[in-house]
Amino acid sequence: MTELDFIDQLKKLATHPAARGLSDDAAVLPFGRHKLVMTHDMLVEGIHFLSNADPADVAWKLVAVNLSDLAAKGAKPLGILMGYSRTDDDAWDAAFVRGLREAITHFGVPLLGGDTVSSGNNKKRTLGLTAFGESKGHIVPARSGAVPGHAVYVTGRIGDAWGGLQLASGKAHGADFEITAALLKAHNRPRPRLDDGRALSSLVSSMMDVSDGLLLDASRIADASGINIEIDLDAVPLSDPFVSVFGDDEEARMSAATGGDDYQLLLTASPETVLPIKLTKIGKCKSGTGVSLVQHGEQVGLPETLGFVHA
Amino acid sequence: MTELDFIDQLKKLATHPAARGLSDDAAVLPFGRHKLVMTHDMLVEGIHFLSNADPADVAWKLVAVNLSDLAAKGAKPLGILMGYSRTDDDAWDAAFVRGLREAITHFGVPLLGGDTVSSGNNKKRTLGLTAFGESKGHIVPARSGAVPGHAVYVTGRIGDAWGGLQLASGKAHGADFEITAALLKAHNRPRPRLDDGRALSSLVSSMMDVSDGLLLDASRIADASGINIEIDLDAVPLSDPFVSVFGDDEEARMSAATGGDDYQLLLTASPETVLPIKLTKIGKCKSGTGVSLVQHGEQVGLPETLGFVHA
Repeated sequence: MTELDFIDQLKKLATHPAARGLSDDAAVLPFGRHKLVMTHDMLVEGIHFLSNADPADVAWKLVAVNLSDLAAKGAKPLGILMGYSRTDDDAWDAAFVRGLREAITHFGVPLLGGDTVSSGNNKKRTLGLTAFGESKGHIVPARSGAVPGHAVYVTGRIGDAWGGLQLASGKAHGADFEITAALLKAHNRPRPRLDDGRALSSLVSSMMDVSDGLLLDASRIADASGINIEIDLDAVPLSDPFVSVFGDDEEARMSAATGGDDYQLLLTASPETVLPIKLTKIGKCKSGTGVSLVQHGEQVGLPETLGFVHA
Repeated sequence: MTELDFIDQLKKLATHPAARGLSDDAAVLPFGRHKLVMTHDMLVEGIHFLSNADPADVAWKLVAVNLSDLAAKGAKPLGILMGYSRTDDDAWDAAFVRGLREAITHFGVPLLGGDTVSSGNNKKRTLGLTAFGESKGHIVPARSGAVPGHAVYVTGRIGDAWGGLQLASGKAHGADFEITAALLKAHNRPRPRLDDGRALSSLVSSMMDVSDGLLLDASRIADASGINIEIDLDAVPLSDPFVSVFGDDEEARMSAATGGDDYQLLLTASPETVLPIKLTKIGKCKSGTGVSLVQHGEQVGLPETLGFVHA
């Protein structure tokens, strides 16, 4: 049984409409006059973060990846609960607490509870975080609302976090300190687009955050909406630091579009809708299935993997 | 740094009033006209459950221990999110899903989301669950409201889960099948007192659930309230199955009062308050500190450990 088989078994249990079939970024439950939006994501040492990562960055990332799910639903964060498995490494724990303080201060989200356990015989830490927030609009965007004819947009730049990972793991070298720092920061300290998510949520036909790779996440909107999404590889927005290290040829663009950990917002909307923030149009919704790619106006093949699927 | 030192560091971050200083069973946040009550508890294989435990029982317990925290705050459960670290044991996972289905059906609480990860190099599973609910009363009981003169009560019977653990680990043997089954069920399938918690929450001066041992949990109410709690060991309610295996002498009563995993409610209230459900009065609140014990009307010494503190 793979992880996907297991999740399929869980989906059969998750029949409540608020669960959104376990196929969205977050659960959405009416609560009083508003909607409660909730998500829980885990990070496992050696899988989701390197064992030699700065523990302060790990704490930041644990908060940020969960807040990014709230951003994708246009929710305002209200609080977090943390599950922490400790090894006997005081310095690690202390640095983690420092990063946690920085994250909850930066994002203005209070730590409200959780649990701390010994990792016991396990050498690798398992961290979990629940983030919840409220959405005031009547509509909380899902992955499933895209329709043929709608445009596909993305916030910010794509690929910087992947670039930072290449630098952190010694697979690439930055041209200078500032460029290296910018890409490492994108990898180590992702900034979920909370304000953007709130500004966009009532105007989009679908929205999610880009966590596992732009192409893979686009295919998830395509699958959930029963459409095809065509991405124009030339339009994928790259940053100056990214281009200065990796260039902007097809290989570099493909790496950016499959690298993941961007925590930008990917969304679809009617081309007539005026969107209130700066976005890059990267493709369009068509009838069909899955994701397809064009470059220089011509259809090009998909890469072997569309993104990062955890084993 | 011990786990308690680490939690002290987290407490310094958790300054929002809804966090209740990380010293209560759950976070309590005003949300619309009601209150949102949230908790997150973890179970680690080899620490919180035996590696040879029935995975269906583990799933049940993961849900039940979290719902018990909601019961202690008088909250009605609205949903759960689960964090699950998988090893490659399909039969285990399938049995776990079966137990999870039984639990969410029994308690009527929907599975709304969560995350599934590979346990990677870790051999032992780390499971986390967030449960949340709503409390409609103005007052959500804390551990801190007990005052001298109030009576101390407990729901149900104390010690059955400890008795079941003795049977499950071969340290004791039940007299007959029915007795063994009753104690094992108390250990394997705890039933949080959700209805009782809701019926009591507006009438008590403090309330919590008994998870780590009656004496230890009573000391937590005493500490949070700045009082002494005197427990009458003779009054601790034992079940017939418990007494038939372990007797009701001082040693047996002390085991029951320190064994933990009862998931009964421990509460204090004015002796004049008429409480709407059947409870056992087991002691009283006095000025002073900590917990003290009487038996046959005489003060007796405290046992070496008041309950189960995870390493």
